[in-house]
Amino acid sequence: MRTSQFPLSTVKETPADAEITSHKLMIRAGLIRKLASGLYTWLPLGLRVLRKVEQITRQEMQKAGALEVLMPALQPAELWQETGRWEKYGPELARLKDRHDRDFCLGPTHEEIITDLARNELKSYKQLPITYFQVQTKFRDEIRPRFGIMRSREFIMKDAYSFHLTPDSLQETYDVMHQAYTNIFSGLGLNFRAVIADSGSIGGAVSHEFHVLADSGEDAIAISSNSQYAANVEKAEAIMPAGERANASQALTLIDTPNQHSIEELSSFLNIAPQQCLKTLIVRGTEESLIALLLRGDHELNEIKAEKIEGIITPLEFATDAEVINACQCKPGSIGPIGLNIRIIADRSVSLLSDFVCGANQEDKHYTGTNWERDLPLPAEIADLRSVVEGDPSPDGNGTLSIVRGIEVGHIFQLGTTYSAAMNANVINEAGKSETMTMGCYGIGISRVVAAAVEQSHDENGIIWPNKLAPFQVALCPMNMHKSERLREAANKLYQELCDAGIDVLFDDRKVRAGFMFSDMELIGIPHRIIIGDRGLDTNSVEYRARTDSENQEIALDNIVAFIQEKTN
Amino acid sequence: MRTSQFPLSTVKETPADAEITSHKLMIRAGLIRKLASGLYTWLPLGLRVLRKVEQITRQEMQKAGALEVLMPALQPAELWQETGRWEKYGPELARLKDRHDRDFCLGPTHEEIITDLARNELKSYKQLPITYFQVQTKFRDEIRPRFGIMRSREFIMKDAYSFHLTPDSLQETYDVMHQAYTNIFSGLGLNFRAVIADSGSIGGAVSHEFHVLADSGEDAIAISSNSQYAANVEKAEAIMPAGERANASQALTLIDTPNQHSIEELSSFLNIAPQQCLKTLIVRGTEESLIALLLRGDHELNEIKAEKIEGIITPLEFATDAEVINACQCKPGSIGPIGLNIRIIADRSVSLLSDFVCGANQEDKHYTGTNWERDLPLPAEIADLRSVVEGDPSPDGNGTLSIVRGIEVGHIFQLGTTYSAAMNANVINEAGKSETMTMGCYGIGISRVVAAAVEQSHDENGIIWPNKLAPFQVALCPMNMHKSERLREAANKLYQELCDAGIDVLFDDRKVRAGFMFSDMELIGIPHRIIIGDRGLDTNSVEYRARTDSENQEIALDNIVAFIQEKTN
Repeated sequence: MRTSQFPLSTVKETPADAEITSHKLMIRAGLIRKLASGLYTWLPLGLRVLRKVEQITRQEMQKAGALEVLMPALQPAELWQETGRWEKYGPELARLKDRHDRDFCLGPTHEEIITDLARNELKSYKQLPITYFQVQTKFRDEIRPRFGIMRSREFIMKDAYSFHLTPDSLQETYDVMHQAYTNIFSGLGLNFRAVIADSGSIGGAVSHEFHVLADSGEDAIAISSNSQYAANVEKAEAIMPAGERANASQALTLIDTPNQHSIEELSSFLNIAPQQCLKTLIVRGTEESLIALLLRGDHELNEIKAEKIEGIITPLEFATDAEVINACQCKPGSIGPIGLNIRIIADRSVSLLSDFVCGANQEDKHYTGTNWERDLPLPAEIADLRSVVEGDPSPDGNGTLSIVRGIEVGHIFQLGTTYSAAMNANVINEAGKSETMTMGCYGIGISRVVAAAVEQSHDENGIIWPNKLAPFQVALCPMNMHKSERLREAANKLYQELCDAGIDVLFDDRKVRAGFMFSDMELIGIPHRIIIGDRGLDTNSVEYRARTDSENQEIALDNIVAFIQEKTN
Repeated sequence: MRTSQFPLSTVKETPADAEITSHKLMIRAGLIRKLASGLYTWLPLGLRVLRKVEQITRQEMQKAGALEVLMPALQPAELWQETGRWEKYGPELARLKDRHDRDFCLGPTHEEIITDLARNELKSYKQLPITYFQVQTKFRDEIRPRFGIMRSREFIMKDAYSFHLTPDSLQETYDVMHQAYTNIFSGLGLNFRAVIADSGSIGGAVSHEFHVLADSGEDAIAISSNSQYAANVEKAEAIMPAGERANASQALTLIDTPNQHSIEELSSFLNIAPQQCLKTLIVRGTEESLIALLLRGDHELNEIKAEKIEGIITPLEFATDAEVINACQCKPGSIGPIGLNIRIIADRSVSLLSDFVCGANQEDKHYTGTNWERDLPLPAEIADLRSVVEGDPSPDGNGTLSIVRGIEVGHIFQLGTTYSAAMNANVINEAGKSETMTMGCYGIGISRVVAAAVEQSHDENGIIWPNKLAPFQVALCPMNMHKSERLREAANKLYQELCDAGIDVLFDDRKVRAGFMFSDMELIGIPHRIIIGDRGLDTNSVEYRARTDSENQEIALDNIVAFIQEKTN
């Protein structure tokens, strides 16, 4: 493509509402334009990137044996009423009435529609397993659309749905999809992790999220130094630390700690590390009782984990000061386990503490040198109550965890019979009996992947696309071509040779100065740049620079096509 | 593809709501499934066809220099208010409110959105001309969705929009698009016509519709026997017939015609041809006057043409009996031009009549042997008032017209400044002054093309796809493969060879009887069928039959790949 036929739409100004880098760069590079809040038009340059994501995704879905369909975006309310989601789904579901006053929604997802299709098309176990997928426009009426196409109201998803007779068959397809997703994101050249989205430890549904790693990611992910283990920080298990509890070396001492109520205040007042302190949090139980949760001073309570413990109110509620005083005869800030007369649950790491500091259940007083068994019994209830932190052992026993940030771009999920049971999606099994199908669903935010890729890879000059995602692989920049007939001929010849070699080239035939050309090509992130100039022609050479390089290198004109072919393969 | 991996969804039953062949066949062949009234899911087989239409269209748009974008389906009301269409557009516009109570619609078309994009992106005449296109989902809340995907509420369109400084530039792009459309429909192997949709004779906007010809088409089209001329019957010009008026041979005679009021009654009563009679219709004029329109007895008034005549009320209104009696002192049915004291406009062909019969302006009386100039002056106003009929001369002077039926699948239109002026879409011209851009728009109903192709080409056994549209080019049908290891090997080998040759093969590896296999392959319309059987293997041959053939032909197994390659190229 020549820029004369494929005009660039780069702009200098960063839009006022752009909070994150990908939003800014996608506007500045001319990939997207805002139509209205949360609604974007894909410009030609952006659409080229979007189509690459779509294409690789489609190929991998086909390789995985999934069948492509295309379902309507407009969905009748009746099906959503069958599953109860018409009532349950909040205002994010865009609803409308047709001219006959019938209710419809704009699909944010298609479980109801595909289950309706499946119950009509699938009659026998012999037709199973089967996986359908589509690449389609979805709608979500976000309360506050932001971050450009990262959280928009209309976006493109690849959604897939599988149908099975048995959980084993579902697991098999799930594994195939897991691999397909891995192939897709690897194929796109992205640094990503498959993240355990639900522990599954208590027989719950299995689910993985696929995250593109980027410092700006919304989600914190714990990843292992030595294995593929990765989990949402909120979901990652904090296992019992290795080693034994140290022996007591200090005497239990009651000390005055005037106005020292937080762990931060206390550790600074006593000049000790926060991990030497015990944090006692009082939450509400289901039966109008209070429950004390014990954590190491440097750890944070993980509310999701706490909510899974029987007897704790969901969503979690902290006790008020008055309730604490009533139950413990002391204000929060000086509460501790010694002599505490309510249910106590300790985090696993708490059991390894010795010589620790804790509240004394007397106003402005704490104990130092506290030791389990000697000064008080170790609580009978030990649980995983906290979020993992950097350096924690990996729950799979391999290496230690570090915390990185990610952007969710995919999600695979073993749905089970949630939808199929509600909608009577049955087949005849081998025994001739009607049986409810088991389902899986598998989504990729096609448009979101583009933004995530930009978040992951950019510098102060613009986007840095991986080869497979780049709108063009090579930028061909001739220097002052309009002044030299010889150069014009050479540049056109090279352009043709690159095209003939099957390379996607953007030939910058604009009559602009070199610096302008380069900064545009850097902004839009073309991975490889060739500069062809009159001086180089004297020595039969061109200059090459990768988007990630800081220096040009001289390449013989006769070699450049082969050189680029190698770089782009 | 093997049917084991690409299951067919053929069904025997024809859906009760299917009125036309394409709807019936698309359901029966398993191309689409109904989700709700006017909403269809594309099954894998149908989607393959849809994608082919999409792909050829995209290629031709790119060749024509159009830039692909992707605009949102959800459109803010504000832009539609700028052009006044928010109010003007009827209930076909699907409207909804977002959670913040702001008005949106689901786009049936994108003029407002693209004009908004253009006014923001295009600043200078140097950026013109430019053409954008997209392949995108559109919505139209039809009062009575019917005919399957032919008139559905959600469908796929290719819409393109061009921007220009001058009408000449618009005409140039319009011509390029006209050619691109011709390439698309030829490329798809369809029998089609580019139809003049507006005469353009009085400086009006230029517009062409592209129709796939099919007996079941909704539109009547007049096409020339000798040229590319084609026009909607309502729009085709009925030119002045060649030849001179014959001389008078009969005397003007007043006769009794009791209760003979219609041309049919009159001609039958007098035992003459309807074309010997003059039809006099009385319509309302704009200034409370009546106007008489004279037509040859066998011709039909074309209301659209009549409405274009100054002084005639739009939409056309016929005078009531009372009004006619008041103005002409006679009831309708016996009115004629002799002595008639109101404005008279005669159709062109009327001026060639001689010895004709007309009303005598006396109850139940007509004149026979009427002749212009001798009995009454030829009306001063002669106009094109009628619809063309089979056998009329072609308005371009080449051949005669015949009337065929068509399905509109494309429309190109010179919009002018309708949208750009309303929305202030201006650029700076060469003189440095702000100037409103001129626009063209160009649509193809991608999903509609699929149905139109089926309407055009099918037989009692099912669909007959042209090669380029077919979901698969070849059906490979092995006879009782499960009973013969040798056959299984040979069939698999042939399948592989066909795939390696780049041919889209559907390998029917189902354990079904031959008749069942054949009728499925005929129903889904695969253009070429290869039967491989144990007996053929003895003589190293297979049987071939094109979908349009009635007999098999024997082809050497070693030649079949080359044979098919030739057939499908």
